[in-house]
Amino acid sequence: MLEKIKSSKDIKSLSPSDLYKLTEEIRNTIIRTVSRNGGHLASNLGMVEATVALHKVFDLPNDKLVFDVGHQCYAHKLLTGRYEQFPTIRQYGGISGFPNRNESEYDVLNEGHSGTSVSAALGIAKSNKLKGNDNYAVAIVGDGSLTNGLIYEALNNCSNEKLNLIILVNDNEMSISQNVGGLHKYLTRIRTSKKYFHFKRGIEYILAKIPLIGKPLAILCSKIKNFFKRMFVKETFFEALGLDYLGPVDGNNLDKMITVLTEAKKRHCCCVVHMKTKKGFGYEPAEKNPQLYHSVSPFDDEKGAKASDKYTFSDAFGDIVCECAKNDNKICAITAAMCDGTGLCRFAKEHPERFFDVGIAEEHAVTFASGLAVNGLKPVLALYSTFAQRVYDQIFHDISIQNLPLVLALDHSGLVDGDGITHQGIFDYSIFSSLPSTVIYSPENYAELSSVIKKSLEYRSLSVIRYPKECEITGYDKDVKFISGEDALFSYTDGADSCDILIITSGRITYNAYCALELLKEKYSVGILKLIKVFPIDDEVIVKFAKNAKLVYILEEEIKSGSMAEKICFAMSTNGLSSKIAVRAIDGYINHGSLCDLYGECGFSKDQIASEIENLAKDVLNG
Amino acid sequence: MLEKIKSSKDIKSLSPSDLYKLTEEIRNTIIRTVSRNGGHLASNLGMVEATVALHKVFDLPNDKLVFDVGHQCYAHKLLTGRYEQFPTIRQYGGISGFPNRNESEYDVLNEGHSGTSVSAALGIAKSNKLKGNDNYAVAIVGDGSLTNGLIYEALNNCSNEKLNLIILVNDNEMSISQNVGGLHKYLTRIRTSKKYFHFKRGIEYILAKIPLIGKPLAILCSKIKNFFKRMFVKETFFEALGLDYLGPVDGNNLDKMITVLTEAKKRHCCCVVHMKTKKGFGYEPAEKNPQLYHSVSPFDDEKGAKASDKYTFSDAFGDIVCECAKNDNKICAITAAMCDGTGLCRFAKEHPERFFDVGIAEEHAVTFASGLAVNGLKPVLALYSTFAQRVYDQIFHDISIQNLPLVLALDHSGLVDGDGITHQGIFDYSIFSSLPSTVIYSPENYAELSSVIKKSLEYRSLSVIRYPKECEITGYDKDVKFISGEDALFSYTDGADSCDILIITSGRITYNAYCALELLKEKYSVGILKLIKVFPIDDEVIVKFAKNAKLVYILEEEIKSGSMAEKICFAMSTNGLSSKIAVRAIDGYINHGSLCDLYGECGFSKDQIASEIENLAKDVLNG
Repeated sequence: MLEKIKSSKDIKSLSPSDLYKLTEEIRNTIIRTVSRNGGHLASNLGMVEATVALHKVFDLPNDKLVFDVGHQCYAHKLLTGRYEQFPTIRQYGGISGFPNRNESEYDVLNEGHSGTSVSAALGIAKSNKLKGNDNYAVAIVGDGSLTNGLIYEALNNCSNEKLNLIILVNDNEMSISQNVGGLHKYLTRIRTSKKYFHFKRGIEYILAKIPLIGKPLAILCSKIKNFFKRMFVKETFFEALGLDYLGPVDGNNLDKMITVLTEAKKRHCCCVVHMKTKKGFGYEPAEKNPQLYHSVSPFDDEKGAKASDKYTFSDAFGDIVCECAKNDNKICAITAAMCDGTGLCRFAKEHPERFFDVGIAEEHAVTFASGLAVNGLKPVLALYSTFAQRVYDQIFHDISIQNLPLVLALDHSGLVDGDGITHQGIFDYSIFSSLPSTVIYSPENYAELSSVIKKSLEYRSLSVIRYPKECEITGYDKDVKFISGEDALFSYTDGADSCDILIITSGRITYNAYCALELLKEKYSVGILKLIKVFPIDDEVIVKFAKNAKLVYILEEEIKSGSMAEKICFAMSTNGLSSKIAVRAIDGYINHGSLCDLYGECGFSKDQIASEIENLAKDVLNG
Repeated sequence: MLEKIKSSKDIKSLSPSDLYKLTEEIRNTIIRTVSRNGGHLASNLGMVEATVALHKVFDLPNDKLVFDVGHQCYAHKLLTGRYEQFPTIRQYGGISGFPNRNESEYDVLNEGHSGTSVSAALGIAKSNKLKGNDNYAVAIVGDGSLTNGLIYEALNNCSNEKLNLIILVNDNEMSISQNVGGLHKYLTRIRTSKKYFHFKRGIEYILAKIPLIGKPLAILCSKIKNFFKRMFVKETFFEALGLDYLGPVDGNNLDKMITVLTEAKKRHCCCVVHMKTKKGFGYEPAEKNPQLYHSVSPFDDEKGAKASDKYTFSDAFGDIVCECAKNDNKICAITAAMCDGTGLCRFAKEHPERFFDVGIAEEHAVTFASGLAVNGLKPVLALYSTFAQRVYDQIFHDISIQNLPLVLALDHSGLVDGDGITHQGIFDYSIFSSLPSTVIYSPENYAELSSVIKKSLEYRSLSVIRYPKECEITGYDKDVKFISGEDALFSYTDGADSCDILIITSGRITYNAYCALELLKEKYSVGILKLIKVFPIDDEVIVKFAKNAKLVYILEEEIKSGSMAEKICFAMSTNGLSSKIAVRAIDGYINHGSLCDLYGECGFSKDQIASEIENLAKDVLNG
């Protein structure tokens, strides 16, 4: 039946039993496809019924669905003409695993970061009102995002004016790792507090039974009831902020979802619908282990997914920090709901009193770290590079200008496979290098990671350590001599500081530079300067190695504007070096695909690098 | 008496009447000093009693006070050994108008941005616990900051574990301009809801009076009462987040403040103390017009302060956007609690339905703008440059990658007098220029401002317009020929593209470049290239004008790392130009002082510029 759904409108006429069948088909399609391509599974399975209900009740694309974070949009994609493309999800050139404006008019925004949905939906609702139409805006928010400050700013800004705005809270009792905070406990309490309503009815019943004082007391009781009802109803968290509230309702029950959304529509105000869903609903392995099935690599759907046994940069980071913390009880570790993703689970277990998971609240994580540092502790905060974009001001205000120490470990720096435009870790260097006293490291392997973590823990201000998703590549350069400096390594083919072509690079992509060098070394005199400390640029090192080069080729896995390349170029100019400079860096937004595909798009493959250098060399060396 | 208070400890032994006298002295000292130096007045007057109470009750500096935003710290400074330096407040080399770690051990953090206090105080409280001491951390938060997401993230993260953490909410019913949002209405309700408690006692009384059914109903009533009490008490906003709550209490009543803080100490948990204060308390002109006296220029304290009648960049911006909006009903304006400060009051009046004040919630402002833009509107968001540091990720995620239009107007760009390190607008260029498709303008005068606003309103993605506090400088360059290009102007002394020394600059500081040129032009061939569009750098323009220059001197009022200078340098290198390059930009954090002082510190005065160029010219032109 799913193949016949070409647009959201096609489900309007389906019978209840067909709708039910549709949910089954969607679920099976998602399981089949994710097992092949990898992707977000558990959250998408939990959202099937709610998504069908949304499409049934709302008039899409005139009404607009805004998904928070967006990785729960698979059913939405299947219902909006993308069934045939669905097998290409997360693949290069295929459809995205997140909502994407370029893909479909049903995708309102590209979403990938947390907490944005209510603000955007409020903007849409206000502009609908301004334009005089009566379309709806619906924000779909996971409970994890409710720990985020941006959501709160938006909820607080939804005044009680009449707007067609619905906020569907998808409460699956779990954000990416584990939910934290007072509001979470509060939601749990609401979830389990049917008792209150039962009790209230009980009181009415009892009071009505008392015969002697019947009427006067009944009036009094009615007053009491209404008063308390008003007080109570007004004091729910959402209603304290001036929002209407419906729920909790079973989000995996299609009928109930249709009912509650239909009711919410009638309110014509900012209305929170609180639904409970089960992560992984309908697929037993995922129901049992939603954490494992949150974001999975391709797996055998008979046997189920397995936890990866690769030892990644995240694992190495976690182990190194753990070891350091054994000997230094000032070291604390902080995560923003990514204990597992950043490799900190071992730390959490071994040093629970010094481990802090603050929820999806990156800004708070930094300022909280500032408070720890004020008292002499040494905070280490691990974030994905792309999410660290949230904390620029807190890093500036609460760490950098205070001269307080913080080790900011940026996992998933550089290009990231699968997730696409919202998840590339390519801006961190440009933004954090603007802050005085900052040091940025870009280790290529675990040994370097260990060394720079140790250095960073002794530094008085901000240290940023950027490292990629996945594993180190080592052992490839055994034939190359290395001259080790403080924070730079030079590998050469024919003389340390006298090669014609100097490649300056850092981090993971050094391997590709090396492979290109292997292709070129017979024909040219080529050397590689690998920087480990990438900011501030050490002018002396640059001058020493670049002064005799005819061509300096800077290769880096980050956005070009504000990059290391610009700073190296600046160092060369102001030191009077006039070698030809060429830069290969990232020059625009990058969508999803495998790392190999993305490298190809950016000109980062060994062949591309070699051939670019060769073309440049022709001009420079002949001139 | 105040001159004898050398440290916080000296007030411990004062009698109640002496404490009262002390508050009078503090108040008078603040009024006298601010009338002379300018500064924040109304909020400081409101905080006198609370500050004295804090110093009386807590053991400073072992207990730590963290001021949110920090401009309400004057009484605190007077009580911590800075009475004698107080006349130097906000002056170059004098004490800061904000808490400053370098100034005193009583100043825990440099504070100037909103919403950071609870996070930092929580970090301090947790580390106190870790270290096994029983010191307190106290966050002092204005109600305006409660609209901020960072505060919410922190409140939500204060679990109900035992911690010596007190959150003093200073509710003066007014943030910088006007408070907005659901929570504000909620606080108002709490403030006025003593009725509830009276009503409750009334019910008990009535029920006890009913004789016949006395005992059983009394039991039932007790159950009802406790149940509802539990429900109600649990459902206040703060308590829903797991925090203890005391208040509201009169924050201008010293005795009551001492009592409530003493009680809060005993709780040994995360406790919110909700106090009401009056902005400008004790100084009638400020009580009557707290908005005017929020942040004032020096004034005659007999006659009182006057609203400035200068026509500033903010005013010009507001007028231009207003005029544009008359002819284009898609244009909307957004402010984050700075309607007045960003010149948008006229817009708010003339186009109220298209004007949005979202409170101190910069992140939400951007994502909300994204929602407006999705529906075809043209949002203009005005922020102070330093506060725009908060929105990098939202600009990336909700505007830039979406290819949605936003005009981001950055008031207070460049150096800002008085406020100091937390308020300099010097990082915006470095961070926003990292984002693909972004255009950045730096107009020097209102005519240029008008032109770039109009261009920006037609642009499909992010436009950033950076302009300074204060007024344009015009009419100074009548003798200089200008060649007007699309986004660049070239003024020269002897031939458009053939001067030996080319100064490249932009915005307000062009005037100083011009004055330096006047000093140099007899002796050297000097030209000025003024860029209006400062990003992306137009390689063609740079090559055209710089190709014959022997010295290119880049002058810019922003941080050097990630600056326009680096990008111009890059453009020159990659285009094979090898002129000597020198850069005069900001190279570290800048504290408070007059603009003239700060320019001197940065080497930006006309004499400094001229003499630096002359020194460079000696080498270059002789070589």
